[in-house]
Amino acid sequence: MVSAPSGAGKTSLCQELIDTFPDLRQSVSFTTRQKREGEEDGVDYHFISSEAFQEKIRQQQLAEWAEVHGNLYGTSLETLNEAAAQGIDLLLDIDCQGAAQLKKNYQQGVFVFILPPDYAELEKRLRHRGTDDEDVIQRRLKNSEQEISQSRWYDYLVVNDDINLAKDNFIAIIKAERCRSHRTAHLLNKFTIKGR
Amino acid sequence: MVSAPSGAGKTSLCQELIDTFPDLRQSVSFTTRQKREGEEDGVDYHFISSEAFQEKIRQQQLAEWAEVHGNLYGTSLETLNEAAAQGIDLLLDIDCQGAAQLKKNYQQGVFVFILPPDYAELEKRLRHRGTDDEDVIQRRLKNSEQEISQSRWYDYLVVNDDINLAKDNFIAIIKAERCRSHRTAHLLNKFTIKGR
Repeated sequence: MVSAPSGAGKTSLCQELIDTFPDLRQSVSFTTRQKREGEEDGVDYHFISSEAFQEKIRQQQLAEWAEVHGNLYGTSLETLNEAAAQGIDLLLDIDCQGAAQLKKNYQQGVFVFILPPDYAELEKRLRHRGTDDEDVIQRRLKNSEQEISQSRWYDYLVVNDDINLAKDNFIAIIKAERCRSHRTAHLLNKFTIKGR
Repeated sequence: MVSAPSGAGKTSLCQELIDTFPDLRQSVSFTTRQKREGEEDGVDYHFISSEAFQEKIRQQQLAEWAEVHGNLYGTSLETLNEAAAQGIDLLLDIDCQGAAQLKKNYQQGVFVFILPPDYAELEKRLRHRGTDDEDVIQRRLKNSEQEISQSRWYDYLVVNDDINLAKDNFIAIIKAERCRSHRTAHLLNKFTIKGR
């Protein structure tokens, strides 16, 4: 589960993970918003009706959900559990509020927060895009402050100062987590004493 | 803290870590055994008298200790605490019993166990050395079985099948652990709101 303030470089870091680990899959969320040109159901999102989404909330089938600009977005527990059952690692690009819900509902997740080196650099990056108005930049900076203040509980903090170092650390987290004994204990089975 | 059964490849994996992380230091143990030709006090070991060692035990200054072939060996808490205070990561090459003591006395350690791919391969490696008698090989295999059976509580299990993959995973564990939020939370201080 990866979160980051806007401008921290999350998109390119996630892309690096996907390129590095061909077996890593991006989680597909459910949403009530309209499908856009070029989007595919089940690939970009599972597009469902508002009623179906509400039903999922009622049945507690969602590990996290949120309303954004009047549309509902959420991750189903079934998606997470099915992947886990098949031994597939899912990558979830998710905001702090969604991540906090996930932390409660799906403890076995690994939570990574991407940090910019500092505010000055974050502001520089947001301005460098050249696409946003001043008020949008100010709003993003304020949101970033808010999100960073909520990042202390994440399992890992990755500072994206030098992009290559950040990629290297992000990749290392996946490799290391795959070695954690609660995920690899089955390897010990072949060493159990059988009348040696 | 790294443990492994004999023949699992611990020595070359530790050497790889030292080559990769110039800031990683090997912990220097205390011992009561005689200094050998070429060994240096404070570098290979801290060579102390039996009385001084017993005093350290009495004063609970040791994070772990053991008697091996009539000599005492141990790691002092001071060594660990001083390194931690200076932000230095120590590498401890330690057997399962020492590691288990350390786990109790020094919770903040990261415990890695190196596994051979299987017993057949371990036996092959031990024989391949060509230096040990059959009874020594059998004893080592028995010890390995014993040690592997105690490895479930370690934080990480690294299988040394492909040596390059094992090195890569071992290095990843250090990199990832250095990103863990309980070690990096100080990075958030520069983002605290100061009248923005």
